[in-house]
Amino acid sequence: MLRKILVLGAGKSTSYLLDYFLDKSITEKLHLTIGDIHPEGIPSSVKDHPNCTVIHLDILKNDDRKKAIKDSDIVVSMLPARFHIKVAEDCVELNKNLVTASYISTEIRALDETVRKKGLIFMNEIGLDPGIDHMSAMQVIDQITDQGGKIILFESFTGGLVAPESDNNLWNYKFTWNPRNVVLAGQGGAAKFIQEGTYKYIPYHKLFRRTEFFEIEGYGKFEGYANRDSLKYRKAYGLQDALTLYRGTMRRVGFSKAWNMFVQLGMTDDSYTIENSKGMSYREFTNLFLPYSPTDSVELKLRHYLKIDQDDSKWEMLSELNIFDAKKTIPLDHATPAQILQLILEDSWTLDEDDKDMIVMYHKFGYELHGKKLQIDANMVVIGENRFHTAMARTVGLPVAIATLLILNGKIKTPGVQIPIAKEVYDPILKELKNYGINFKEYEVPYLGYNPDSVGN
Amino acid sequence: MLRKILVLGAGKSTSYLLDYFLDKSITEKLHLTIGDIHPEGIPSSVKDHPNCTVIHLDILKNDDRKKAIKDSDIVVSMLPARFHIKVAEDCVELNKNLVTASYISTEIRALDETVRKKGLIFMNEIGLDPGIDHMSAMQVIDQITDQGGKIILFESFTGGLVAPESDNNLWNYKFTWNPRNVVLAGQGGAAKFIQEGTYKYIPYHKLFRRTEFFEIEGYGKFEGYANRDSLKYRKAYGLQDALTLYRGTMRRVGFSKAWNMFVQLGMTDDSYTIENSKGMSYREFTNLFLPYSPTDSVELKLRHYLKIDQDDSKWEMLSELNIFDAKKTIPLDHATPAQILQLILEDSWTLDEDDKDMIVMYHKFGYELHGKKLQIDANMVVIGENRFHTAMARTVGLPVAIATLLILNGKIKTPGVQIPIAKEVYDPILKELKNYGINFKEYEVPYLGYNPDSVGN
Repeated sequence: MLRKILVLGAGKSTSYLLDYFLDKSITEKLHLTIGDIHPEGIPSSVKDHPNCTVIHLDILKNDDRKKAIKDSDIVVSMLPARFHIKVAEDCVELNKNLVTASYISTEIRALDETVRKKGLIFMNEIGLDPGIDHMSAMQVIDQITDQGGKIILFESFTGGLVAPESDNNLWNYKFTWNPRNVVLAGQGGAAKFIQEGTYKYIPYHKLFRRTEFFEIEGYGKFEGYANRDSLKYRKAYGLQDALTLYRGTMRRVGFSKAWNMFVQLGMTDDSYTIENSKGMSYREFTNLFLPYSPTDSVELKLRHYLKIDQDDSKWEMLSELNIFDAKKTIPLDHATPAQILQLILEDSWTLDEDDKDMIVMYHKFGYELHGKKLQIDANMVVIGENRFHTAMARTVGLPVAIATLLILNGKIKTPGVQIPIAKEVYDPILKELKNYGINFKEYEVPYLGYNPDSVGN
Repeated sequence: MLRKILVLGAGKSTSYLLDYFLDKSITEKLHLTIGDIHPEGIPSSVKDHPNCTVIHLDILKNDDRKKAIKDSDIVVSMLPARFHIKVAEDCVELNKNLVTASYISTEIRALDETVRKKGLIFMNEIGLDPGIDHMSAMQVIDQITDQGGKIILFESFTGGLVAPESDNNLWNYKFTWNPRNVVLAGQGGAAKFIQEGTYKYIPYHKLFRRTEFFEIEGYGKFEGYANRDSLKYRKAYGLQDALTLYRGTMRRVGFSKAWNMFVQLGMTDDSYTIENSKGMSYREFTNLFLPYSPTDSVELKLRHYLKIDQDDSKWEMLSELNIFDAKKTIPLDHATPAQILQLILEDSWTLDEDDKDMIVMYHKFGYELHGKKLQIDANMVVIGENRFHTAMARTVGLPVAIATLLILNGKIKTPGVQIPIAKEVYDPILKELKNYGINFKEYEVPYLGYNPDSVGN
């Protein structure tokens, strides 16, 4: 008898996930049902697989959704996060386990007690970030504490970038995920973290000027800027006593300093709309953020406003994006500055068909053991195949798929609404991920504490 | 028979207002009733006046409020703006005219049709700013358009400052009104205005670096930074065709550049609280916003972070406020950065008993007449008497009082929910204000359009 997996939502991050299930479907006796509102977009290699059924499903139609869930043994929701709660409530009612790659919402967390009582497993945050970050960090943290060590520093950075072989712009960056999230990154409040026992706060307009640097052998240098809340998993990871906690986003060196120009101009603002945006040229858009002058060019005004020297490489980076172009026009009406900036960047930063993306992750673990201060750094690099088979889809989809099978096979068995921080969860998943080229290099480095020399000003 | 005026709320801005009514009470046959929740704070010179009655009134007690309103001929609400709607609804029901110094809320605006039908007058925004700004601007705008001129530029700035004779700190500033509003000034979205026909937007973190300069004879130089929405009264003032519209706040030259340090550090942020703020020293508070260093002082880190040269006067301005003091501590727990900054500033910027405040207002009117481009500048300076009898209280309270009496005497008679932009309203009020030393100097200047040379970078 086949075990029935229901995958809800077959968007661009699901290619590896679906392939994993179908590749294992004979040996593991799996039947895959994919419910999607646009099933016509699913490739025929998936659709036509003998162990796969594709159904048209509008997730908001309660009867249809419930019926699909009832017919399954386990549910994987790859839908946008806002739809998870409906699915989760049905899973509670119909006694099904659930796997998602999304952040646990307050509503889903509230189901924990019921889920536990029923002996169900609701595994969340099991993609890349959140997901692989949790698992890879907890594996090292547990190893250190099991030896009697005490974590005093934890830093963790993830970035979705373009692979070196496809890296052909001055920003060393292309969009590999949701461009809107990239434009809005860091907004919504000051970034909060701890350095050597002291709370630190960085306002949005300074965020991209307080970066930290890393080097990954064979891949060169990277920089990181702080996430909004570095303390989010402090308790979950058991790091209440760590003196330094810092989580962030990775970019190639120089990106943040240049991105800061958009922040300073106000082009990343998403809080108001520009009435007459439709038909406005890129140049006119740029000029909205600069003082009026009857004589000076937009270029000179911008240089002066942001104090950009003539030989500053940031200038070439700006020019490359055509923000001074008087002919290219904005097709959106009543758009926010952030929406327009996104559109301008998409002209330059969209992956070509053969472009490869790259995922990088970097952890630092500082700890005390037998009176000594030590440090382990760990990093992961994953390169994509092309625009459709991205490293992003691989690193998001595979952990979800592997966890689903482990739950189905009774290898993960602790019930509750959870994230993958238990050994029972991360050990077999990280092991299986290695078979798919997703693995960390760990090495010892001297413990320097929080090293001010590695922080930009 | 005496005409009965009901004043609701006898806060610090009402001293001149109450005195105006009482001074006129014999000749104008007025009886004043003051309703306040803390009537014990009202000075005996007011309380004991034969034509004055003071009542204890909790504005949220519907019956008490309605009774007081019913017994009056006209109502003046000096309550916090959120309470006006209750009073306004009663005034509609009981057929009473109403005067307030507050911005018209959406709820109050919605009463316009009913108010008109009943022939009532609800006069709002008749204090200083809004109030005197509306009236003084519209008087000149109407004069110009009546002559056949066409307004092409309108700029208007107001500031509540400390008078030169009491100005003894490096910021040339003391709090003369609500300190919280000063700390939060400019937050909540980009500033929007029009310069020479082009929309311009300034994000908060650049607001204090895009200032404009003014000189007022006998009072020296001032600067202005943009208000959030310079286009708010575009239609009401009839300025749909003006190429430049700019409204702002005035400070002494150098204030904004120095204030920008707090903005850059993130100290004006009111969106999150600092858990362990109670007992934290001013120095520790400052250090929250600076990178960690095992060796460098808070002073050096701040200089480096904000790129402040050793001989930069901004440095002395910061030091004067004791933000590096390790002994002064914060008494508030779970306070926002903005709340803590306010507290630190109140140490230095509170008016002494004998300190005098100063109100400055500056308008520019550019216009075309008979094919020529011309400009009129107008300014007003009002100096306070002491900490209790401030220029702020005088310029807020007197227009309210004068408008009330004019309505009572049938001199202002156009019904509706309104602001003071009609000639019927501004002419007699501005005339009477002159008798109290509140008047504008107008003079012609060459029309330069929007002059980039007067704008800081």
